[in-house]
Amino acid sequence: VPPSLDALLLERCFDRLWPIPRSITGEGVRRTHAILAELLPLTTIEVPSGTPVFDWTIPKEWIVREAFVVGPDGRRVIDLRDNSLHLVSYSMPFRGRVSRSELDVHLHSRPDQPSAIPYVTSYYEPRWGFCLAHEQRQALPDGDYDVVIDTDLIDGSLTLSEAVLAGTATDEILISTYTCHPAMANNELSGPLVAALLYRKLAALPERRFTYRFVFQPETIGAIAYLDRMGVHLKSHLHAGLVLTCVGDRGPLTYKRSRQGDGALDRAASLLLRPGRLNGTCRDFQPWGSDEKHYGSPGFNLPVGAMMRTPPAEFPEYHSSLDNKSFVSFAAMVESAEAIVELLALLEANRRFINLYPYGEPQLGRRGLMATMNRDGSRTERLLAIKWVLNLSDGLHDLLAIAERSGIDPRRIVEAARDCQCAGLIAPHAHTDPETAAPTGS
Amino acid sequence: VPPSLDALLLERCFDRLWPIPRSITGEGVRRTHAILAELLPLTTIEVPSGTPVFDWTIPKEWIVREAFVVGPDGRRVIDLRDNSLHLVSYSMPFRGRVSRSELDVHLHSRPDQPSAIPYVTSYYEPRWGFCLAHEQRQALPDGDYDVVIDTDLIDGSLTLSEAVLAGTATDEILISTYTCHPAMANNELSGPLVAALLYRKLAALPERRFTYRFVFQPETIGAIAYLDRMGVHLKSHLHAGLVLTCVGDRGPLTYKRSRQGDGALDRAASLLLRPGRLNGTCRDFQPWGSDEKHYGSPGFNLPVGAMMRTPPAEFPEYHSSLDNKSFVSFAAMVESAEAIVELLALLEANRRFINLYPYGEPQLGRRGLMATMNRDGSRTERLLAIKWVLNLSDGLHDLLAIAERSGIDPRRIVEAARDCQCAGLIAPHAHTDPETAAPTGS
Amino acid sequence: VPPSLDALLLERCFDRLWPIPRSITGEGVRRTHAILAELLPLTTIEVPSGTPVFDWTIPKEWIVREAFVVGPDGRRVIDLRDNSLHLVSYSMPFRGRVSRSELDVHLHSRPDQPSAIPYVTSYYEPRWGFCLAHEQRQALPDGDYDVVIDTDLIDGSLTLSEAVLAGTATDEILISTYTCHPAMANNELSGPLVAALLYRKLAALPERRFTYRFVFQPETIGAIAYLDRMGVHLKSHLHAGLVLTCVGDRGPLTYKRSRQGDGALDRAASLLLRPGRLNGTCRDFQPWGSDEKHYGSPGFNLPVGAMMRTPPAEFPEYHSSLDNKSFVSFAAMVESAEAIVELLALLEANRRFINLYPYGEPQLGRRGLMATMNRDGSRTERLLAIKWVLNLSDGLHDLLAIAERSGIDPRRIVEAARDCQCAGLIAPHAHTDPETAAPTGS
Repeated sequence: VPPSLDALLLERCFDRLWPIPRSITGEGVRRTHAILAELLPLTTIEVPSGTPVFDWTIPKEWIVREAFVVGPDGRRVIDLRDNSLHLVSYSMPFRGRVSRSELDVHLHSRPDQPSAIPYVTSYYEPRWGFCLAHEQRQALPDGDYDVVIDTDLIDGSLTLSEAVLAGTATDEILISTYTCHPAMANNELSGPLVAALLYRKLAALPERRFTYRFVFQPETIGAIAYLDRMGVHLKSHLHAGLVLTCVGDRGPLTYKRSRQGDGALDRAASLLLRPGRLNGTCRDFQPWGSDEKHYGSPGFNLPVGAMMRTPPAEFPEYHSSLDNKSFVSFAAMVESAEAIVELLALLEANRRFINLYPYGEPQLGRRGLMATMNRDGSRTERLLAIKWVLNLSDGLHDLLAIAERSGIDPRRIVEAARDCQCAGLIAPHAHTDPETAAPTGS
Repeated sequence: VPPSLDALLLERCFDRLWPIPRSITGEGVRRTHAILAELLPLTTIEVPSGTPVFDWTIPKEWIVREAFVVGPDGRRVIDLRDNSLHLVSYSMPFRGRVSRSELDVHLHSRPDQPSAIPYVTSYYEPRWGFCLAHEQRQALPDGDYDVVIDTDLIDGSLTLSEAVLAGTATDEILISTYTCHPAMANNELSGPLVAALLYRKLAALPERRFTYRFVFQPETIGAIAYLDRMGVHLKSHLHAGLVLTCVGDRGPLTYKRSRQGDGALDRAASLLLRPGRLNGTCRDFQPWGSDEKHYGSPGFNLPVGAMMRTPPAEFPEYHSSLDNKSFVSFAAMVESAEAIVELLALLEANRRFINLYPYGEPQLGRRGLMATMNRDGSRTERLLAIKWVLNLSDGLHDLLAIAERSGIDPRRIVEAARDCQCAGLIAPHAHTDPETAAPTGS
Repeated sequence: VPPSLDALLLERCFDRLWPIPRSITGEGVRRTHAILAELLPLTTIEVPSGTPVFDWTIPKEWIVREAFVVGPDGRRVIDLRDNSLHLVSYSMPFRGRVSRSELDVHLHSRPDQPSAIPYVTSYYEPRWGFCLAHEQRQALPDGDYDVVIDTDLIDGSLTLSEAVLAGTATDEILISTYTCHPAMANNELSGPLVAALLYRKLAALPERRFTYRFVFQPETIGAIAYLDRMGVHLKSHLHAGLVLTCVGDRGPLTYKRSRQGDGALDRAASLLLRPGRLNGTCRDFQPWGSDEKHYGSPGFNLPVGAMMRTPPAEFPEYHSSLDNKSFVSFAAMVESAEAIVELLALLEANRRFINLYPYGEPQLGRRGLMATMNRDGSRTERLLAIKWVLNLSDGLHDLLAIAERSGIDPRRIVEAARDCQCAGLIAPHAHTDPETAAPTGS
């Protein structure tokens, strides 16, 4: 199968983003956002170093010019230019000659994955260090090593970017992903790439009910800075939200429920991520993982879940140089975006309806919704879905609830509701539907 | 085992009802109700053709004088007089000579059941047609056929009949069944026969708390016409209801819960239709099947379930000439009626009680409810049931709730409550019991 | 393994309590309480015979001087002095010569356990009788037997004892056990012995939040007399309660939930009595067993469960002379007391907290609660417990609820809450916490 146009678009973008040395602040994030801005209209905000954000403070901006280690034989044995994982993120500047054993204190490797370079950070405690394959570390001979770490911590800023796609309602859906990890494919680039593709697919729809807010930010400190600015707004406008992380590997989709556990997106995912519908599984909220733990902190308790394929820390390549281009699949990223589009289409269609002919079953035959001759085989799934929609359109059940009770694929329920609405049998329960807020400006 | 008197009564009635050509209107229904009226005191109502009933209109009355097809050799190859399934119900009048292939367009048969005559209707779209065994259809030679369908659609009426058995309370229990199908045994005659027998068994009881309302009507349009007249009354008076359909085959009992799912009858059936109690199973409401879908439409949402043995469309003989006398069992019909009597006895007995000695367990020994010597084997099921009744007679739990929590057969709980009441230990929680309405006229 | 000091203490006490002939009233109970009073500071109350207590009346006091049967050969074949189970409890006085067959009417034995002397009582119906091994009964020859039962029923009193261990709050935890059975080890002495040890362990704690009320009383009539005096007080002060019965055999622990089923102790036991935590199981309330049925009668509905090892009537030695010292284990009794201490420690620690940094996850690294370098293996159970405590400290979840939702051992949750509180991250939700009542006297 040749790759789709979408997959090619993502791969081309991936190749440009891969070599950029990213951290939670600095030029790496800015260049990353600039490239993503070619795919969707990003607005960038800079939050100055030293700004207090809840319990945290925006750190100084980390500047890396070069970082390498020269071995006893005068050759560079580790060089940041070879792999942006080689330097412990936020390493202090250092320049000096150290013995093999002094150097070793500053080295990080994984004996269980001897060929992988691990990913290590020390954002809030001054340190310096290098990461390398365990087999390389073991092969480093005795002798003196020249270490050069030309970094700086300056008063700069943290970079957040946002794109808003307006809908007819002011209620919002948040898509949040992070752009702070260096060279990792699934646990970095898959999220922003799928988010960008999702934006383009939603933008191409003829109409949208919800307003979609896409956020790209450094993990943790970025989410907290974002909540500092937007938390109150989200608290009053957010219908549902989704953190995207590790959405590029070949595993099935995994949806992690929001802290609330029963929001519209939680319910939609429980209905769709099933065998025979969209393949995948759901799991309950836990207060760790990616930024869903901040959106779901008790002061906000926002209905934000997370979409993943294989969850972080559950694949052996996680947080190492093995999480690279060959580990991910651009077709899988496209499939992730398409699955999210299906989920969001359920939220777009979901509402409560009122059966306008609620006394007995209305006559379906003369409206073309049912065969006018009673014979075998007349119980199609479409007809059963129509009967459930009519029976439960009492102003209390939304379409998700009808799918839950009936056991029928929610997409069939949405189609049946459209058929019933076209036939004049049901009407939206407008006045009490919480999502149909007045449009902005009215 | 010789048949019981009840079974003989039902069989004699069955044999008279079987040959009557029934449809949703007309003389077939009227003759059927007249025969049933020998078993219970029916009051009949005629609703004129053209009367609007919610989304429907009472159709014209269909009159069939004769219908047959004469083959190329001059012999009648299909004749309504042989089997009342042969004519598509509500066929338009037709008289003419047609070729074999022209005729075939109007024939209905089932290749999967080649010896069965299927049951086909076209109530609301003008058509004509004949139903016959697939093997007979295939054997019809080429040539010209004379078709005679002497039917009429006239301004007449739809026939509903009702029998009301008064109880001490105005709260009602509805028993509803249909009388519109031609020659089918399980999916037509079993329902009215079991309903009539049930009436006689309830009428023979020394006392009844509830008022029982029995309704016989054509399916769908009859139920809707009935709800048009009685829906508001039922909404304010109905304690529980039961549609009877397919209660004559040899399968175990199947109770289909009402739309509400937790009404008194739903709970009683969940407790009784279990292995070791009354054999049988329960299943959840679905908005199709028989008239329970109309009683459970969102505008009424009445607590009406359905009692069946093998549910409609789940036995291969369904809607065909194979659903005949040899398929059903009169002993099974009697057993169906007896099981319903047991269910209704639970509803009759069910109420909340108040323990008059609620502080510590009262002294059971001196009241003869427990052995006065403490020895092994004193924990009889009767004693455990008494202890549960005393413990949960707090005004919050009705007897069904005590059976649910204790796991004890609800009939043992009812007996224990009687024992406790006779011993002066409990008293009915009269003032807040929703079923003990004032008698009519007070 | 040599026995622990606690086990030796219990055994020494057991040996003194064993030979005392106990019944629901009289000197046996008084001497039993006097010995127990060496282990904990008991206050004794005497309730006079004839006092009405709810549906019951305090019975006359039963005095036994001697009781024996002399066989045809002049030898004593049954003598109360050999085993205090030999006489049916509350036997009327009797003196006379009876034939073998006349005697047999008054004998009790168990054919299924031919070497065991059964335990039989007839408190509220005048009778006399002897209990003996079935094999001994069968060997009694024909001839005349001299029966001497020198008992008296006098106006005396029923004996209740109590010890109260004050805490900082007025909310109470009740520990209730019975002291009315004659020579039985598990189904009599294990309860008071474990209760006494539990008192000593709780008294040794540096601080207690709850006030602990220990009650020793004859089963049933004692509990009812106690409730007559203290029921209203308990209704307004009781946080949780526990009946101790059969806590000395070698089976795993069994907790029987209170009638309410979801009290704090019910929830703590459900969390702790699990494989891998404290071994054991939980079961639902039933209105029989020991005095929990009176505490859980509908007029009181107190949150009192029962702690057992093998429940009464579920071990073959139950209510017979086989329930003796060799059947029980003093190590098991110590383990029972220690498990209850762990359960109560959960109740002591349980409260709702408020996260003081509820907006996003607070910075754990700089507070020493989390590694400051992000590397593999940083997700310790301690860290996950801390994250759950922070996430759910919203004023709605108590620590038990956090353990329930997280699936983490509740003792780890308690530790995590202590860590978070020490770090200044959470504070008790004081104003609405129902257990933090004002101390007595305020």
